[in-house]
Amino acid sequence: MINIAVLGYGTVGSGVVKVLETNREKIDKKAGVPIRVKYVLDLRDFPGDPIQEKIVHDYNVILNDPEIKIVVEVMGGLKPAYEFTKAALEAGKSVCTSNKELVAEHGSDLLDLAREKNVNYLFEASCGGGIPVIRPLNSSLTAEDIDEVSGILNGTTNYILSEMTEKGSDFDDALKEAQELGYAERNPEADVEGYDACRKIAILSSLAFGKTVKYNTIHTEGITKITPEDITFAKKADMAVKLLASANKTVEEDGSENFYAMVAPFLVRHGHPLYNINGVFNAVFVHGNMLGDSLFYGSGAGSLPTASAVVGDVVDAVRHLQRTLFVFWDSEELKLSDNGTAVRPFFIRVPADKKDEAAKLFDAEMVIECPEIPEEAGIITASMQENDFMKKCDEIHYVISSIRVNV
Amino acid sequence: MINIAVLGYGTVGSGVVKVLETNREKIDKKAGVPIRVKYVLDLRDFPGDPIQEKIVHDYNVILNDPEIKIVVEVMGGLKPAYEFTKAALEAGKSVCTSNKELVAEHGSDLLDLAREKNVNYLFEASCGGGIPVIRPLNSSLTAEDIDEVSGILNGTTNYILSEMTEKGSDFDDALKEAQELGYAERNPEADVEGYDACRKIAILSSLAFGKTVKYNTIHTEGITKITPEDITFAKKADMAVKLLASANKTVEEDGSENFYAMVAPFLVRHGHPLYNINGVFNAVFVHGNMLGDSLFYGSGAGSLPTASAVVGDVVDAVRHLQRTLFVFWDSEELKLSDNGTAVRPFFIRVPADKKDEAAKLFDAEMVIECPEIPEEAGIITASMQENDFMKKCDEIHYVISSIRVNV
Repeated sequence: MINIAVLGYGTVGSGVVKVLETNREKIDKKAGVPIRVKYVLDLRDFPGDPIQEKIVHDYNVILNDPEIKIVVEVMGGLKPAYEFTKAALEAGKSVCTSNKELVAEHGSDLLDLAREKNVNYLFEASCGGGIPVIRPLNSSLTAEDIDEVSGILNGTTNYILSEMTEKGSDFDDALKEAQELGYAERNPEADVEGYDACRKIAILSSLAFGKTVKYNTIHTEGITKITPEDITFAKKADMAVKLLASANKTVEEDGSENFYAMVAPFLVRHGHPLYNINGVFNAVFVHGNMLGDSLFYGSGAGSLPTASAVVGDVVDAVRHLQRTLFVFWDSEELKLSDNGTAVRPFFIRVPADKKDEAAKLFDAEMVIECPEIPEEAGIITASMQENDFMKKCDEIHYVISSIRVNV
Repeated sequence: MINIAVLGYGTVGSGVVKVLETNREKIDKKAGVPIRVKYVLDLRDFPGDPIQEKIVHDYNVILNDPEIKIVVEVMGGLKPAYEFTKAALEAGKSVCTSNKELVAEHGSDLLDLAREKNVNYLFEASCGGGIPVIRPLNSSLTAEDIDEVSGILNGTTNYILSEMTEKGSDFDDALKEAQELGYAERNPEADVEGYDACRKIAILSSLAFGKTVKYNTIHTEGITKITPEDITFAKKADMAVKLLASANKTVEEDGSENFYAMVAPFLVRHGHPLYNINGVFNAVFVHGNMLGDSLFYGSGAGSLPTASAVVGDVVDAVRHLQRTLFVFWDSEELKLSDNGTAVRPFFIRVPADKKDEAAKLFDAEMVIECPEIPEEAGIITASMQENDFMKKCDEIHYVISSIRVNV
């Protein structure tokens, strides 16, 4: 029998207990040994809940119990999760987590510490909830030179954009609906401003490129400025507006490599695997030099899908007690290039009477006219450096809105 | 340094050599040690090709060389691949393969043998080419009770159906085009009759359900009877005709489990993750009781994507020399239930003047009329047992064609 402790009995923590109970037989078989939750750490009590007898308020009870081999950290946030995780690893316990903030901030250090102590720090649930993507990156795509990892990594914003697209509603109404349905928090900032997706792409790109991509160096824009008009033009052009968290590598003529990362709304073309990802679903797109396109799709959030990924990590930790699994994430920082030098097309809206002028100025790839919005025209520009694009926009003063176009 | 031997210098074998050369630096770093191809076994010689110096014609050279730790079997077929694989495992060498016929026929035996010899038999490339799906099933979704695994597992047929859908061409013309483009073999039987997809779903369902699903017990239909008219009606109903390889579990009221598996054309509804998988791409859909829907998408065939998966397995085999990775595939046969008892809706075409009668008889969920085909009507029936459906069809004699509808 393996005893584990769960830190935090919130959405994910209670899901972990539920998954372990519901699928106990299958899980124990795959782990090779029964897994038992011995403690649940929470500040609260849960009188009447069967979990109550396992609740402890003092982390030291867990830390000092040699029977606890694996700690499940599903508290979220940096404090006290960071101290708790470090202490567990130092005590020779493996840690499985869904905590994207902590992994994005201290992932490579904690991996180093786990390696030093011959245990594991596993975080499949930190990106894309229940979608298996961390393990495929670490263990399956090892023959690839990955040049892009992009994703729809936040279900709240994808739900809002899907609703705006389907119903023509504006951002505020779609947000309100998402809040009523429980898909958005009362304080939605972390989601709608892209901060959540930013942590996740920092983790994914660190794994894809093997060095540390610092989340606070990633340019991050949210979806609050997207309007129904933007979406109407996008639909007319057979594209979808998506909040993409994207990282890619370009190889210059002299063989040098540039790395770019960004979270921002993008127009995604029909036919691209991310075009059809709707509602609260998430997807991660990976492009490798041998494999070409691949996509991992599923429930990016939610109690049970996320908990399922955490428990999958617990099973792996049980199978690999005292043996650290391979993860290539060097603590050296990966310096990101200035997004101003990134080359792509852009979508802009301009007043209808400026259509021809703007089309010429931006060497338009496509001019979009919508009968619903006769006073404006949409333009997909030629591919150009973002710096040049911005300069042109500044010169002409009449660009109503602009959104990057995914290539 | 780890020395490996490649059996077969065909499409996949030459891809393996190319992947190892192109991404040598990254691969060696992930393996922790340089990987070198010491031998390539082929009946042919390749004068002028740099591989020539490594070509051997006698398998015993490989088998008796203690330097060879890993054998890559990419010959395909059962003979002599089965004997060669057994001999390699018995000699304490790990085997990595893309050979779906062999894995479907002898997978669990070879896994047992590998376990006994403390080595690995890895076959990520056998299903879905470069798409990581075997490893996620074995190592990521371990907390799930999987109740469905379905896929578009054959690129040739998916290309043909996509062409028929886009261009309205008939099967023969689309096949001819696929052959001209190299997407279909001169003898296309294994693809178009569903035999290839059958092997792959046998492997995937064995892993998903943990027991051996024998491929020759899986009901298998191809796409040769699909007509442009079928597709026109499907489009009108906002569905797509896809060759699905599908396995699922149902739990009856008394708690007993029934397992079904089948390869056949299906109508897939708009909104289902498999609806949008077009061209030569493949995708595997997995449904678990905690995770819900998930999808793995990518290049299901082709020299380099398939080779990339094989080399990913080689890296894993190098990392786990003398340590068998966990795979849950019991040699006990999983008895499949009679598909006649499976419940689902069906699509049928009937003469226009029989529309109302048929709609009533089959308790129609939808009646489809196409101005292009005024002499016929399409009907989506209510969900019913396949036996009952067939009986009704037999009674009325006027059903022009029928296709199962995916639920």
